[in-house]
Amino acid sequence: MKKLAIGIDIGGTNASFGFVSTEGKVLNKKSYPIKNFKTAKSFVDFTSKEIANSVSNLNSSYEISGIGIGAPNGNFYTGAIEFAPNLEWNGFIPLASMFHESTGYKSFLTNDANAAAIGEMVYGDAKDLKNFVMITLGTGVGSGFVANGELILGYDGFAGELGHTIFDPNGRQCNCGRCGCVETYASATGIVRTAKEFLTKFNEKSLLHNADLDKLSSKDIYNAALQKDKIALKVFDYTGYVLGFSLANAIAITSPEAIFLFGGLANAGDLIFRPTKKYMEKYLLNIFKNKVELRKSGLPENDAAIIGAAALVWDH
Amino acid sequence: MKKLAIGIDIGGTNASFGFVSTEGKVLNKKSYPIKNFKTAKSFVDFTSKEIANSVSNLNSSYEISGIGIGAPNGNFYTGAIEFAPNLEWNGFIPLASMFHESTGYKSFLTNDANAAAIGEMVYGDAKDLKNFVMITLGTGVGSGFVANGELILGYDGFAGELGHTIFDPNGRQCNCGRCGCVETYASATGIVRTAKEFLTKFNEKSLLHNADLDKLSSKDIYNAALQKDKIALKVFDYTGYVLGFSLANAIAITSPEAIFLFGGLANAGDLIFRPTKKYMEKYLLNIFKNKVELRKSGLPENDAAIIGAAALVWDH
Repeated sequence: MKKLAIGIDIGGTNASFGFVSTEGKVLNKKSYPIKNFKTAKSFVDFTSKEIANSVSNLNSSYEISGIGIGAPNGNFYTGAIEFAPNLEWNGFIPLASMFHESTGYKSFLTNDANAAAIGEMVYGDAKDLKNFVMITLGTGVGSGFVANGELILGYDGFAGELGHTIFDPNGRQCNCGRCGCVETYASATGIVRTAKEFLTKFNEKSLLHNADLDKLSSKDIYNAALQKDKIALKVFDYTGYVLGFSLANAIAITSPEAIFLFGGLANAGDLIFRPTKKYMEKYLLNIFKNKVELRKSGLPENDAAIIGAAALVWDH
Repeated sequence: MKKLAIGIDIGGTNASFGFVSTEGKVLNKKSYPIKNFKTAKSFVDFTSKEIANSVSNLNSSYEISGIGIGAPNGNFYTGAIEFAPNLEWNGFIPLASMFHESTGYKSFLTNDANAAAIGEMVYGDAKDLKNFVMITLGTGVGSGFVANGELILGYDGFAGELGHTIFDPNGRQCNCGRCGCVETYASATGIVRTAKEFLTKFNEKSLLHNADLDKLSSKDIYNAALQKDKIALKVFDYTGYVLGFSLANAIAITSPEAIFLFGGLANAGDLIFRPTKKYMEKYLLNIFKNKVELRKSGLPENDAAIIGAAALVWDH
């Protein structure tokens, strides 16, 4: 029998699932808008039926080993989504046990960035690493810290919130209610805020002056930077400064061998990697300098969330 | 047979050792100036003879299980002191293997703060905790992070340097060559720097104006604060601000159940605990608020370093 894990990814816009082989190959992927489901129960019922349907079509040489779920504000210990601000389902939602009841498969749940870290360890470029950090640069900044070969979940299951460490206590307002979180600078939304600030702060000509500021996206800034637009390059440099500085402080705590960047902003390549590395090295304590690799995640962009979620099954 | 571990503590001024029972009782403690030994070898030779001497005087119902050493810049993986700026012995000193050869006992070595963290876990108030942080507030600021029941050593053995996370990149010069490290504010030397700064910054009358500034000590500031001296109280408040802010950021990464403060500054009691707790809570992400205990270490003040070092033997 060949074993498969089911990976379920829950995002603010879409949910998707797929069957993942022990080698990381994704079969039978399906995706649908999360807003279709007013309650978590209706989502679980629908997805369980879809899963049963896909399983019945599988070749009989396959066997399902379990379900892994990656979700915003997901807590591994409770198996629940806890008070996720970006989902319509409110409060404490014990999704892992709901799926277990509904499908009969053992089910695990954690947050997206932790799932990505486990995915990197099981399927990606961290297979041989015992100490590394996974940073997901999307609308926000997520992170998963692995030490001694194990994900750091912490006392309450919410460890790994580098995006909500405070870079500047007098800095930008964050959705979390505090000011100056790393996520308000080093995310896709943060980089847009920086661009708007720099367009008034600096006098250089910029392609971005032609843009509709209300619709300015990180992609626009990326495109301008590719054309060597000075303001856009300054924006990337500053974003790398905030991220590199924060990584230097995090390195002093867990001393990883490598840091993996994943997600939209990581795809900007050298534009983000070069300044991040430069400032990270600048602010590192001597004993850590030139020791920590800054790498792009080895997970395949499109299936990473499903693969990461599925990896939970093999990790336990 | 009753088992004993030998704990050796190496400090910038004195070295000491003692035999520690499995219950944490210290026998046959000896202490001598570290400056007496121009080379590490002469120190190992002398200490090994002293140990052999003490062992020969032990009741025959005792058995030695091994040696644990706590030392500045001690690296558990290599068993060596690596380039310690505060010791006269330069370079890479494989002290664990030197003691093993010299005494025949299996020997372990780590840095002082990590030894204290393991001591807290084996003998102190962290016996039942899987996720906690130990902060040593002395001349500098040391720390040991425990996650999933294991000390985080990191890739290279130097994890847990909270004192060298940067609080303010434009801040005070640190001995490490960078600027604004937590240790330049939240240590015994840092609090003196803050007092000198505040005496020129603020206009209030202060008992500290009468002090010889070249000889001002953290104890003077403590005594002034006990007399409700406004400047001294501001100094403690600011020290708690830097420490509390930095702890809040560290909590976002490892999510500990408790943080233990140990060492000279921790003995200032409410004067340091109250502002540290206040600012820690202020800068914590919502999901961590009112969950993390800030506690005084449960290790006995005088023997803590020896006990912590000895705990290495039981931990392995």
